[in-house]
Amino acid sequence: MIQTAVLGYGTVGSGVVEVIERNNAEVSRRAGEEVHVKYILDLRDFPGDPYEDKVVHDFNLILEDEEVSVVCEVMGGVGAAYQFTKQALEAGKSVCTSNKELVAKHGPELLALAAKKRCNYMFEASVGGGIPIIRSINNALTPEKIVAVAGILNGTTNYILTKMEREGTDYGEALKQAQALGYAERSPEADVEGHDACRKIAILASLMTGKNVDSEKVPTEGITKITPADFDFAKAAGMTIKLLGKAQLTEDGKLLAMVAPHMLSKDHSLAMVNDVFNGIFVTGNMLGDTMFYGHGAGKLPTASAVTADVIDCIRNQGRTIQCIWEDTEAELADAALTRKKFFVRAKASAREAVEAAFPGSVAVEADGHEEELGFITQEMTEQEFDEKCGGLKDSVLGRIRML
Amino acid sequence: MIQTAVLGYGTVGSGVVEVIERNNAEVSRRAGEEVHVKYILDLRDFPGDPYEDKVVHDFNLILEDEEVSVVCEVMGGVGAAYQFTKQALEAGKSVCTSNKELVAKHGPELLALAAKKRCNYMFEASVGGGIPIIRSINNALTPEKIVAVAGILNGTTNYILTKMEREGTDYGEALKQAQALGYAERSPEADVEGHDACRKIAILASLMTGKNVDSEKVPTEGITKITPADFDFAKAAGMTIKLLGKAQLTEDGKLLAMVAPHMLSKDHSLAMVNDVFNGIFVTGNMLGDTMFYGHGAGKLPTASAVTADVIDCIRNQGRTIQCIWEDTEAELADAALTRKKFFVRAKASAREAVEAAFPGSVAVEADGHEEELGFITQEMTEQEFDEKCGGLKDSVLGRIRML
Repeated sequence: MIQTAVLGYGTVGSGVVEVIERNNAEVSRRAGEEVHVKYILDLRDFPGDPYEDKVVHDFNLILEDEEVSVVCEVMGGVGAAYQFTKQALEAGKSVCTSNKELVAKHGPELLALAAKKRCNYMFEASVGGGIPIIRSINNALTPEKIVAVAGILNGTTNYILTKMEREGTDYGEALKQAQALGYAERSPEADVEGHDACRKIAILASLMTGKNVDSEKVPTEGITKITPADFDFAKAAGMTIKLLGKAQLTEDGKLLAMVAPHMLSKDHSLAMVNDVFNGIFVTGNMLGDTMFYGHGAGKLPTASAVTADVIDCIRNQGRTIQCIWEDTEAELADAALTRKKFFVRAKASAREAVEAAFPGSVAVEADGHEEELGFITQEMTEQEFDEKCGGLKDSVLGRIRML
Repeated sequence: MIQTAVLGYGTVGSGVVEVIERNNAEVSRRAGEEVHVKYILDLRDFPGDPYEDKVVHDFNLILEDEEVSVVCEVMGGVGAAYQFTKQALEAGKSVCTSNKELVAKHGPELLALAAKKRCNYMFEASVGGGIPIIRSINNALTPEKIVAVAGILNGTTNYILTKMEREGTDYGEALKQAQALGYAERSPEADVEGHDACRKIAILASLMTGKNVDSEKVPTEGITKITPADFDFAKAAGMTIKLLGKAQLTEDGKLLAMVAPHMLSKDHSLAMVNDVFNGIFVTGNMLGDTMFYGHGAGKLPTASAVTADVIDCIRNQGRTIQCIWEDTEAELADAALTRKKFFVRAKASAREAVEAAFPGSVAVEADGHEEELGFITQEMTEQEFDEKCGGLKDSVLGRIRML
């Protein structure tokens, strides 16, 4: 019998207990041993909860209990979670987490510690919720030189953008609805400013290259400037708008990573990833494109991913599953110098000036926006585009990268 | 250093050699040891081939060479491939294969033999080409009770159906084009009659239940009866037509498995899986839906999947990776008694009779087919539907299951 402990009895934590206990037949069969939750660590008590007798308040109880071989850290943050994780690994207990902030910040250190102690630090649930994207990179696409990862990594912003596209809702109203449904937090910055997606793409980029990608160095732009007018023009051009996290190898072997809204064709597979779903493209040099799609968040999907890690830890007791993520920094390409097409929405009165600034651009008209015009430019660097937009001053009403 | 042998130097076999040697840095790093191909077994010689010196004609050379610890069986068929696989496993050499026919027919036996000899029988490439679907079921969605798998599992027929949808081509012409491009074989029966998809869904259904699903007992219908008129009506109803392999648990715990063309909404994620791509939905009781999408066939994607298995065998020398596929038969539900909606295309002159046979059905009209009418029925059993169609005799021009 394997005993586990769950740190944090919030949404994901209660989901982990539910998955392990409700699906106990499946979990135990796959683990090869019976698995149970022995402790739930939380500051609070949960009178009346079916698992209230498992709730403890002192982490040392867990740390000192030799029966506990796997710990699920689903409390979040980089304070106590970091300390508890280090202590558990030091004690040879494997740790499974959904905590993308901690993984993005201390991944290499915690992986190295796990390897030293012949246990495991696993974080499938930190990216893409229930989508097995970490495992696919580490364990399935292993013969590949992965040249690009691009995806919709944040369900909250995808819900907001989907709402704006389908119902013409403006950003503020769509955010309110997302908050009312519990998809967005009251302080929604981590989602809407792109920080959450940024941590996730930093984790994926690190696994893709095997080197460390510092999420604080990844250029990140959120969705707060996207308007219903942008969607009207996108629709007129057969496109939609999605917040993408992207990481790709450049020709000179550097890594380009960024998070930003992108306009993409309605025919693109990522265009059909709607509501709170996530979709992630991985491009390998042999395999070409593969896409993974599913629930990017939510109690049970995220808990299922944590539990899959628990099972893997049990299957691999005494050995460390390979996860190449070195502490050396990946060399990042300068995003300002990368080339792509852009969408510009401008005052119709400035048509000549815009066409002069962006020769060869294709104009797009949208019903109900006769005072405005959209333009899809030729390829140019971000820097060049910024300079040209600067020259057009107030005439530019909106600007979005094209995928 | 790990030495491997490749059995069969055809499309996939030459791909495996290419992936292992061209991506040797990635492959060796992920395997944790340098990996090379020592032998290529084929009846033919390949003068001028860069690897001609590795070509041998006698399997015993490989079998008796203790340096060879992993064998890639990519020759196909259930004759020599079966014998060689058994002999290799008996000798403690792991076997990785793309041979879905052999896996569907002898999977449990070969897995048991591998377990007995503490080596591995791996078959990621047998389903979904480069899509890591086998690994995801065996190693990622492990906490789940998988309640359904449904997908586009055959690239050739998906290419033909996509061509028919987009260009109004008829089946025969689309098949010819698929043959000209090398997507379909000269004897295309295995693809167009659904046998290939059937073997694949039988493999997935076996892994989903842990019991053996005999592919010969899976009701299978191909795409040869689908016409451009069916597509015109599908389009008029906002739908498309795809050949799906499906496996799902029924309420009484049996397994319903089948292969047949299905009409599905253009908004369904599988509707965007076009050309030779594959897409596979997996539904877990905790996770909900997850979809995997990618190259379902082709030299390098398939070879990449075989090589991923080689790497896993090397990482797991001396131990058998869990794969639950028992030799006991899964209890199959009677497909004739399962309920669903159907699409019927009928002579417009028979409208009253069709409406009487299928009360509550929704009529669909399609431009250019004024002599015909489409009907989407209410839910009923396959048996009931067959009987009612029988009663309508020649009035029924086409019939397709609805997803």
